[in-house]
Amino acid sequence: MSQEPEPVQPKSHGRLSIKVSMKPRDLMEGAPHLAQAFEARVVTLFPDAFPGTLGLSLTGKALDAGLWRLKPIDLRTFGLGKHRTVDDTPAGGGAGMVLRADVVDAALEAAMEDTPADRSRWPVIYLSPRGRRFDQAMARRFAACDGLTMLCGRFEGVDQRVLDARQIEEVSLGDFVLTGGELPAQAMLDAVVRLLPGVLGNAASTEEESFSDGMLEHPQYTRPQEWQGAEIPAVLTSGNHGEVAKWRRAQSEALTQERRPDLWQAHLDRQPPKKQR
Amino acid sequence: MSQEPEPVQPKSHGRLSIKVSMKPRDLMEGAPHLAQAFEARVVTLFPDAFPGTLGLSLTGKALDAGLWRLKPIDLRTFGLGKHRTVDDTPAGGGAGMVLRADVVDAALEAAMEDTPADRSRWPVIYLSPRGRRFDQAMARRFAACDGLTMLCGRFEGVDQRVLDARQIEEVSLGDFVLTGGELPAQAMLDAVVRLLPGVLGNAASTEEESFSDGMLEHPQYTRPQEWQGAEIPAVLTSGNHGEVAKWRRAQSEALTQERRPDLWQAHLDRQPPKKQR
Repeated sequence: MSQEPEPVQPKSHGRLSIKVSMKPRDLMEGAPHLAQAFEARVVTLFPDAFPGTLGLSLTGKALDAGLWRLKPIDLRTFGLGKHRTVDDTPAGGGAGMVLRADVVDAALEAAMEDTPADRSRWPVIYLSPRGRRFDQAMARRFAACDGLTMLCGRFEGVDQRVLDARQIEEVSLGDFVLTGGELPAQAMLDAVVRLLPGVLGNAASTEEESFSDGMLEHPQYTRPQEWQGAEIPAVLTSGNHGEVAKWRRAQSEALTQERRPDLWQAHLDRQPPKKQR
Repeated sequence: MSQEPEPVQPKSHGRLSIKVSMKPRDLMEGAPHLAQAFEARVVTLFPDAFPGTLGLSLTGKALDAGLWRLKPIDLRTFGLGKHRTVDDTPAGGGAGMVLRADVVDAALEAAMEDTPADRSRWPVIYLSPRGRRFDQAMARRFAACDGLTMLCGRFEGVDQRVLDARQIEEVSLGDFVLTGGELPAQAMLDAVVRLLPGVLGNAASTEEESFSDGMLEHPQYTRPQEWQGAEIPAVLTSGNHGEVAKWRRAQSEALTQERRPDLWQAHLDRQPPKKQR
């Protein structure tokens, strides 16, 4: 629980820091922020969008309980002139507006106050369809950090110079285009927060679900035993735990093979040579 | 503007209806719903989560203007007994709870009232990490529909029997796990709504952005001309529209090649043979 500050590491960080945190981190190495709750700082033109859906259910209860913290930072307050202008027309022409480098930089400067310089402890990300795709491994990486600064874009994007200067990691929710970064930020925070200690009631839940082992989850059934003429598969009510596990594994494999050949191939690639035919 | 009902098609629909709507639809063939605004019906345990972030900015203005409609349906009201129970423990054991088939079925029955039986006109989807991944092509498919019914899961999932019986299309926001389907539903609706006629001010915006041509978008710049010693690339301020277009295309290709080899390969596969080396 020491509050001694971590020395700032002089080496540069940015997109490449992805690799650094793929290795398990020594949880004892840094002190001030690890002793506290995970904190999300979100630079946005719509601070009222937060906590939004994150304020409900498990993530909302965890927020109330102080298991994580959320600080929206209003980009508009860093805008220029009487009208607090944040954007301008794209250089070279084209539709839409681009967020100004100087405005975004000032907002990020404020958002990054008192955060560790080590980006593997506190990543700074920009929600953008051009970024690396968010996945469960990234959710786990972020959940192991002290906090996360998120820049939500709007309009046609952000001036590239501030992304370069601040060495911001671009992260994409998926191959689709949204009106802004607020919903991706919320979805990513939901995925991250549920992995934080104490947020889910039963830790086993995060171990058996989809992607935890690179496979899709098996089908689920519950009472009633019979519904519209369809019974729960007999094995699930047999009481034979070994057979249940075997059935679920087989279902999970069949489903992954059918729906996600890419995940299935990655699964096969992970197998030791003796399993290959 | 005819209100004559479309005859119900007897053939079955479900996941396979994905292929049906890949072909351009004859906008004249059905009448009652196409004459009206796109409607989203969302079955959820958290109706208060809606419109949430969708109520702000462009999607919110479009909602206010009647360009689309949003109807949350409270799953809890279909719950059983005094406590309105919606879930039960998983058959075969394990962590978490599973939404009951009978409860979900009753909610879907209500949610699908007065919607076309043709799933290519009004898809019924379940937000699930086991589903087909949402992408810009799917956003366009949904935006061309009369409406969309979305089932938001919570806990460990939904009894498989109701998914089978209702021939529900499973759609995933990405390879990560969330506490519920509400945020994916909002993100998908954001992607869909911005494609609806009249929602974006400038139609060109949706044509030049990421994924519209299977590539990531080029970098953007705006004033000031010089910021922290970095200039806007000269070509963008040259006034030569041909050169600007060429530069942007080259940047877009380089970025796609570097960050998304999968998209780049798909791009190469689409080229005519003479372009191959």
